[in-house]
Amino acid sequence: MRFTSEQRLDDGVLEREFTLGEIPGILWTPGSASAPAPLILLGHPGGLHRMYPRLVARARHCAAEGFAAATIELPGSGDRPRSAAAEEARADLHRALEAGEPVDDEIVGRLVLPLVEKAVPEWRAALDALLSLPEIGGPVGYAGGVIAIGVRLAVVEPRISAALLFAGSYVPRAMFEEARQVTIPLQVLLQWDDEGNDRQLALDLFDAFGSAEKTLHANMGGHTGVPGFEGDDGNRFFARHLK
Amino acid sequence: MRFTSEQRLDDGVLEREFTLGEIPGILWTPGSASAPAPLILLGHPGGLHRMYPRLVARARHCAAEGFAAATIELPGSGDRPRSAAAEEARADLHRALEAGEPVDDEIVGRLVLPLVEKAVPEWRAALDALLSLPEIGGPVGYAGGVIAIGVRLAVVEPRISAALLFAGSYVPRAMFEEARQVTIPLQVLLQWDDEGNDRQLALDLFDAFGSAEKTLHANMGGHTGVPGFEGDDGNRFFARHLK
Repeated sequence: MRFTSEQRLDDGVLEREFTLGEIPGILWTPGSASAPAPLILLGHPGGLHRMYPRLVARARHCAAEGFAAATIELPGSGDRPRSAAAEEARADLHRALEAGEPVDDEIVGRLVLPLVEKAVPEWRAALDALLSLPEIGGPVGYAGGVIAIGVRLAVVEPRISAALLFAGSYVPRAMFEEARQVTIPLQVLLQWDDEGNDRQLALDLFDAFGSAEKTLHANMGGHTGVPGFEGDDGNRFFARHLK
Repeated sequence: MRFTSEQRLDDGVLEREFTLGEIPGILWTPGSASAPAPLILLGHPGGLHRMYPRLVARARHCAAEGFAAATIELPGSGDRPRSAAAEEARADLHRALEAGEPVDDEIVGRLVLPLVEKAVPEWRAALDALLSLPEIGGPVGYAGGVIAIGVRLAVVEPRISAALLFAGSYVPRAMFEEARQVTIPLQVLLQWDDEGNDRQLALDLFDAFGSAEKTLHANMGGHTGVPGFEGDDGNRFFARHLK
């Protein structure tokens, strides 16, 4: 892990870009931290530059509660090499959505499963590197989209203690068995009127999770319209489970 | 409205029992209120004595945020005269639930519609009386169960500005058209693993509400197991809309 730039934001948060091998990432740490900060991994659909405004807003919000936050670029996104198979699956998905057809689970599988296979070891490697920094302490939370990555991480990565999952992307039915194995506390955000999402699939996935403590928050406002108060509520969720 | 008893609880909350004609009720006001307090009407399934521990806990929680809280007995519950038709409908409902049969919408209609017709004018009369007290000011919220009463109140009572509805009871399909007319901000609580409730009906009802701001919170813990953090979240919901 190599830091490539560093800047202090106006609220005192330290933002550092890094690379982990070929993978770019960003780490935000609270301005005033006396003890090692719990860490929240910020999941996103790919494209660090495009997602930066939303990511930095979430990171500042985390820092206000005393959490560090970090994210890495997804395989096939941003400046990372594209996968021809993933591009083809993505095009098939968009064609189905534009035609108003139901989205075939086979397409979702082709798009999501290879991404999960590649991304999850990268997130775990980032976690190794981040937790070796003296300013970062356990426990760790995962917050964000590409819900399938969150599901796999929640199952295979014992250092993740709680997850706030944004149910705004497709999950192949093949991963429902994995969802049943998730036992950490979960908060699941669903945009009820997100037209590009499959609401019933999200409800079925929420139902499948094995966690004794799981909460679903459904709101209006479309895919990108998660209400501001959910940011505070996410902090409270992590404060309950990471402190 | 006639006050029949008064006691100061250990946290300073003033609890006063009252009667409104034949209807018993309870009013809780914060210990230290400089200005007239916004009012939250506490809905419940009937039986003030049986429900008292849960009601007073909710009222104390409201008072901690500066809200007054009040409730009245439902028609046919507690010491109020029973309705033979309602008792028969309730027995039919329990028979269906015990037999594991799907609950007939006709039974739900027989049980719920007459209750809504009788109870809603009583809640409105209570509101008239409560809002005439100098220590109570608008705006008003409704919080609680018998979701059908909350739906009707949200439609017909313009003084109610926000509602926190507990989706733990049946609503006849005949009331879905009314749900579409609800436009005030809503927070709907659903116990995901509430075996005596119809989860799909609750989700359909949430979908039907016409409100631009509506939030669904689904949790585990069975019918009576709403997590404690939802109390804080309910206060924040009302603080956003009643202050």
